Amino acid sequence: MQARAFAPAHITGFFEVFLTDDALTSGSRGAGVTLSEGVFTEVEATPARDGEICVEVNGMPCECEVSKYVAEALLADRKERYEVYIKHKITVPQKQGFGTSAAGALSTVIALNQALNLGMSETALAQVAHRAEVECRTGLGDVIAQVTGGLVVRTRAGAPGIGMVEKFYSCAKVVVFLVGSGIETRKVLSSPEIIDRINHYGKECVAELLRNPGVERFVSLSKKFAFATGLAKGKIAKAIIELEEYGYEASMAMLGEAVFVISEKPEEVVNLLDYPCITASIENCGARLL
Amino acid sequence: MQARAFAPAHITGFFEVFLTDDALTSGSRGAGVTLSEGVFTEVEATPARDGEICVEVNGMPCECEVSKYVAEALLADRKERYEVYIKHKITVPQKQGFGTSAAGALSTVIALNQALNLGMSETALAQVAHRAEVECRTGLGDVIAQVTGGLVVRTRAGAPGIGMVEKFYSCAKVVVFLVGSGIETRKVLSSPEIIDRINHYGKECVAELLRNPGVERFVSLSKKFAFATGLAKGKIAKAIIELEEYGYEASMAMLGEAVFVISEKPEEVVNLLDYPCITASIENCGARLL
Repeated sequence: MQARAFAPAHITGFFEVFLTDDALTSGSRGAGVTLSEGVFTEVEATPARDGEICVEVNGMPCECEVSKYVAEALLADRKERYEVYIKHKITVPQKQGFGTSAAGALSTVIALNQALNLGMSETALAQVAHRAEVECRTGLGDVIAQVTGGLVVRTRAGAPGIGMVEKFYSCAKVVVFLVGSGIETRKVLSSPEIIDRINHYGKECVAELLRNPGVERFVSLSKKFAFATGLAKGKIAKAIIELEEYGYEASMAMLGEAVFVISEKPEEVVNLLDYPCITASIENCGARLL
Repeated sequence: MQARAFAPAHITGFFEVFLTDDALTSGSRGAGVTLSEGVFTEVEATPARDGEICVEVNGMPCECEVSKYVAEALLADRKERYEVYIKHKITVPQKQGFGTSAAGALSTVIALNQALNLGMSETALAQVAHRAEVECRTGLGDVIAQVTGGLVVRTRAGAPGIGMVEKFYSCAKVVVFLVGSGIETRKVLSSPEIIDRINHYGKECVAELLRNPGVERFVSLSKKFAFATGLAKGKIAKAIIELEEYGYEASMAMLGEAVFVISEKPEEVVNLLDYPCITASIENCGARLL
């Protein structure tokens, strides 16, 4: 019983945090783009009395708390017990604001639903992934964006089926420069002062983007948010300003030490800064079974 | 100003009609699968004082009422005037229950939004296509299914943003036999007696599928619906029964003279009947910009 699924990476440009007593109504408003790169997951489930869940990332064993969490959640109601192997192939860096934990969780539930023939809907599966993200404090809005695809404006916080989004298509490319080694999302989200600033500017940016949507506007509002909140500093701020001097609007992938540009001509951008760099298309499809 | 988009074909298995005074709240409940085949649309818009809209299907000029309707709707609010060429490549037969008019309309609005940089959301675009379908009486539930992708259960009637769906992923293949030359949707939907029967059994089938979802169940409920409503008759009924004798559940694509089987092994099915036959994957992605 084997199956494969893909969930796109998701770069958040700005956001506003909503935490409630319930993981499904918790989440974020905000906006981001999903990428043609992300997490490809293969699951294999075999009946076994002492069902263990093993996770691998790019060939190496991994703790991957969120992926284990969702697999346990899907297995919890089953009478049968299974040994489950989850193999992630992650084609973007981790801890750099690409939403890889959410993409890993989402592709795991989609593949496992198929492998075990659970008959769960996309919304029900995505809710399991969203709950895992919120409870593990690894993300708040990636799952609903990754299920949707495109430029996704999250207009109401919460899991798929509760939160609401507006989707915009785009055939632009995204260039991401990795200017540092990464940030732990849960560390940033544990400071009340920073969350106050995030919520103030996040709300403003969502309203402004909805008044006049589009990827260019998304990038310029993301930049405004990154500086106004103080999240863009040091090497990140320097890279954004340098790109601006070359004539390109850029901002920071929330929450990573990564700076992105959206352009129809990525080849003109990739060599502008001396940092490792990833290029991908905006993915207009959401997560899916392969 | 050129752009391309794709919308998947959609085979409806069963449905229930909802007509109100407003096209956006009109529609259908029901269930169907979207296919990897469908309508590829290229649009080209050039500023011109006497803006004409020309539509081509597979290289031939075409009246294509629904595609013209949506192009006019998108252009209506613009100050500038444009000449618009819409070129559809349709990879499934028309008038055979594949939802080609909806797929044509949907791919047109997605491409034209990009070509003219209108900044409209997926939901806003799909509402234009849904309205065109309802007002031209060419379909009621295809647009919302084609925007979603997969096995789509329409649980509340209406346009995207108003109607509601449950999406199920599947990697099965669909084999469709063309047993006749096609049916005009608007003719069937103009008889009150047949609509009464459709609504009675359509409602039952939606409830049953949601109790126990999956593609096999979708096909068996579709068969029940096709016979109970009397829509499956003559060559269509004969083909369904013949496939059943070979051990395959089959039903009728609503509304066409077409019979479909969903199978992991389509090669075992394609030669069972002596009719032209189309094989496609279930498409788990919705309509999209290319």
